[in-house]
Amino acid sequence: MAKSKFEYVKEFETEDKCLPNTWIVVRVDGRGFSKFSERYKFKKPNDVRALSVMNAAAKAVMKEFPEIILAYGQSDEYSFVFKKDSTLYNRRIQKLTSVISSAFTAFYITLWPKYFGNESITTPPIFDGRVVCYPSENNLRDYLSWRQTDTHINNLYNTCFWNLVTNKKMSHKEAEEHLKGTVSSDKNELLFTEFGINYNNEPEEFRKGTVIIRGSKKKLETHNCDIIGNNFWDDHKELLNSVPPQQVKNQT
Amino acid sequence: MAKSKFEYVKEFETEDKCLPNTWIVVRVDGRGFSKFSERYKFKKPNDVRALSVMNAAAKAVMKEFPEIILAYGQSDEYSFVFKKDSTLYNRRIQKLTSVISSAFTAFYITLWPKYFGNESITTPPIFDGRVVCYPSENNLRDYLSWRQTDTHINNLYNTCFWNLVTNKKMSHKEAEEHLKGTVSSDKNELLFTEFGINYNNEPEEFRKGTVIIRGSKKKLETHNCDIIGNNFWDDHKELLNSVPPQQVKNQT
Amino acid sequence: MAKSKFEYVKEFETEDKCLPNTWIVVRVDGRGFSKFSERYKFKKPNDVRALSVMNAAAKAVMKEFPEIILAYGQSDEYSFVFKKDSTLYNRRIQKLTSVISSAFTAFYITLWPKYFGNESITTPPIFDGRVVCYPSENNLRDYLSWRQTDTHINNLYNTCFWNLVTNKKMSHKEAEEHLKGTVSSDKNELLFTEFGINYNNEPEEFRKGTVIIRGSKKKLETHNCDIIGNNFWDDHKELLNSVPPQQVKNQT
Amino acid sequence: MAKSKFEYVKEFETEDKCLPNTWIVVRVDGRGFSKFSERYKFKKPNDVRALSVMNAAAKAVMKEFPEIILAYGQSDEYSFVFKKDSTLYNRRIQKLTSVISSAFTAFYITLWPKYFGNESITTPPIFDGRVVCYPSENNLRDYLSWRQTDTHINNLYNTCFWNLVTNKKMSHKEAEEHLKGTVSSDKNELLFTEFGINYNNEPEEFRKGTVIIRGSKKKLETHNCDIIGNNFWDDHKELLNSVPPQQVKNQT
Repeated sequence: MAKSKFEYVKEFETEDKCLPNTWIVVRVDGRGFSKFSERYKFKKPNDVRALSVMNAAAKAVMKEFPEIILAYGQSDEYSFVFKKDSTLYNRRIQKLTSVISSAFTAFYITLWPKYFGNESITTPPIFDGRVVCYPSENNLRDYLSWRQTDTHINNLYNTCFWNLVTNKKMSHKEAEEHLKGTVSSDKNELLFTEFGINYNNEPEEFRKGTVIIRGSKKKLETHNCDIIGNNFWDDHKELLNSVPPQQVKNQT
Repeated sequence: MAKSKFEYVKEFETEDKCLPNTWIVVRVDGRGFSKFSERYKFKKPNDVRALSVMNAAAKAVMKEFPEIILAYGQSDEYSFVFKKDSTLYNRRIQKLTSVISSAFTAFYITLWPKYFGNESITTPPIFDGRVVCYPSENNLRDYLSWRQTDTHINNLYNTCFWNLVTNKKMSHKEAEEHLKGTVSSDKNELLFTEFGINYNNEPEEFRKGTVIIRGSKKKLETHNCDIIGNNFWDDHKELLNSVPPQQVKNQT
Repeated sequence: MAKSKFEYVKEFETEDKCLPNTWIVVRVDGRGFSKFSERYKFKKPNDVRALSVMNAAAKAVMKEFPEIILAYGQSDEYSFVFKKDSTLYNRRIQKLTSVISSAFTAFYITLWPKYFGNESITTPPIFDGRVVCYPSENNLRDYLSWRQTDTHINNLYNTCFWNLVTNKKMSHKEAEEHLKGTVSSDKNELLFTEFGINYNNEPEEFRKGTVIIRGSKKKLETHNCDIIGNNFWDDHKELLNSVPPQQVKNQT
Repeated sequence: MAKSKFEYVKEFETEDKCLPNTWIVVRVDGRGFSKFSERYKFKKPNDVRALSVMNAAAKAVMKEFPEIILAYGQSDEYSFVFKKDSTLYNRRIQKLTSVISSAFTAFYITLWPKYFGNESITTPPIFDGRVVCYPSENNLRDYLSWRQTDTHINNLYNTCFWNLVTNKKMSHKEAEEHLKGTVSSDKNELLFTEFGINYNNEPEEFRKGTVIIRGSKKKLETHNCDIIGNNFWDDHKELLNSVPPQQVKNQT
């Protein structure tokens, strides 16, 4: 029963590293979450408890992996940004995506009772993961802007949809038809006229999603602000400058 | 807030598919499990409850993903073999490794109370995953033989080690020194002479690990037998022949 | 001027290996060859000298790289099949595709005068390359069948097209329009009725392309036969069985 | 002879793109060039004709591919730097490495007679290629510094080695032994004391290699200067700033 005889099978494994000197983003995403949210009766369009479990799981992931500098989440997805010079798992793609997905799942389930009480999860949620590398600050910020734009578009739509369903007693299909072809201003108008809702007064957590960063003394800080414009980044210049300017100067 | 302006960031994602017409294996592996096993006081060298959670989680994964034809597990790892012509997630590597790792983690945690009672998991386990493709039956069988050989080597060593520690009151370091340079026959002899243990009478689950396949009516079946020799494969010819012989004949 | 200071840049290189135990195919393909063929006044639809340079270059490549077991070519493309257990360049994709493309180009140019006389090449041809791996005999044979089917389709079309242009004095556009929507039988009919050509009597080199294999005493042999059916493969069973049957039996 | 039946084999091809927004470097390297240089009696340690063919081939490649902004060469290797936002061949790795290797080979052979006269190449040279991506200016400059440092180290060594062989009548082995363990200052001293050579007066082409860039009116310019320090880059700021500063500002 010689070990060596079979060990050749390890050669079939592939190496798969993130390009050095790029920001690594791992995004986890709920699999079949609309079904999951129905089973556990999530409030529509937003369930504060459900968002809180997501945020708590994301914080636990950031505590576990100190090389993550920022996390951004909305709905059933969370993006984790690693510092540019991270060497976690030798930057191997499969390791990063599987470990972060597993960790997020693990923390989501164990933190669930804190927000949902005694109703324990019997049909657990599953999250897939993907790794993307961004070489420049602009690219990374555009990635995060893309996700926040998505938050806005989805939340505006969902706020209309669920108000039509809940308060106008429309079927899902009718609500869908009603919203077809509408642009942002139409939806804002609809919310105001029909339901007396000023969309801009909706909670920022719903409209902007959640950003988690490490504040003073490395304590995790939660923000629900705009991250598309420059203000947030001007206020947190340390986030993208992992190397102090002086060092960069001397590098070559 | 035009969506299109930022969408270009999707182009940084990479495609990563398993070669068609190969067996896909996803192996999940506990991260820092020796610490986890200490925290939850796993019996050494083998804790039947801990192995049972692993097996139960593996079965739940197989129920969730019908394209898995076989799973093999030992200690804190499990390998899942997909049928050769599986098109799950379009055979994308990152999807497969993250989803299987997440699902295994999710089921492990939710099934834990069934075996460990009321002591719920507060510090959850994390599993990494990796995908490997094997083009031939021989390669796939050699992969599984490699894992089962590993089970044998580890379990024989651990049985010696923990008997020295528990019954001879050796420190971990002393036990390690005591076993240095010994070969299999030395260890068998040691177990018999010092502890009256005939290694071959140890439970097959410990010595052989666990194989799960789909039996009649697709019911999941557990085996703790040798999978290196031909007997198991002769008894389950259907496992590797996903395409009936007739069809192969006509293929070209 | 310390060397080490800059050597870190090597870490940006990526590994890229062909899966072991698969047939590696490298296909080279002329870049912008219609322009090249006009410059050097290739006879249309087929120029025997041009095909001969291609074949001669392919043979030279096979002499240089003994791990190539078969080459198949048509028009301005050639596919090289490496034996399943080839370890050339450690099976690295970039090495294989660049070296074979470079070698083919080099031999094409140096062998050119043998077929085209004193008119030396001033604007040289460029060939791109690509590597594809096939895990099974069926897949590899289907690949070659795909290329030979392509040869047939292109040559039948081109024979019609150039006869219309040359003998019916049609413009390229007119010939194209004339052939639009025609199927194989229409084209055969057209050739026979209009030009008295029985397509099946056209030279096999034009209709079937060229296969090069190693015959007795490793001497390179050229065939212009069908490789889609079983006859060719039955006659050359040694091609796909790189490992003798006995050895396979003992492998596990 | 249905085409579709075999077309599935295309699915075995893999996608392999360079990360967007990074500098693509393709380096070609002579295969077995010491043998080639012996066959064609290259002067040692440097043959001006041989270097000239290399430079001429590199220029021809740059004319053929306008997206190359800079080339750096020494001995039997040349590195081609593509602009950061190049979309040539959709940034596909295999295409880039094979086409550049093929093109370089093609131009090398056709330009050969210009420098080596009537002795045409019968045993042609082969060049392999590799693609590496660099995300930042620092990384790219460090890559080029790495190559130029290599030029310096190799040329200093070779100048000593071949003077020992040619003028001291040492065997290759003896010269090698003689130089073992020497550092740069030892070699400079050796050249001066034994052969009256002030290394710093050796031709810059030998000591620094060759840089080719596009000068005014896109005309190709050759330099043999230092590219490790800042001077060259300060003089050619346009090289790395493919996007004018203004545009960058507006990008987000």
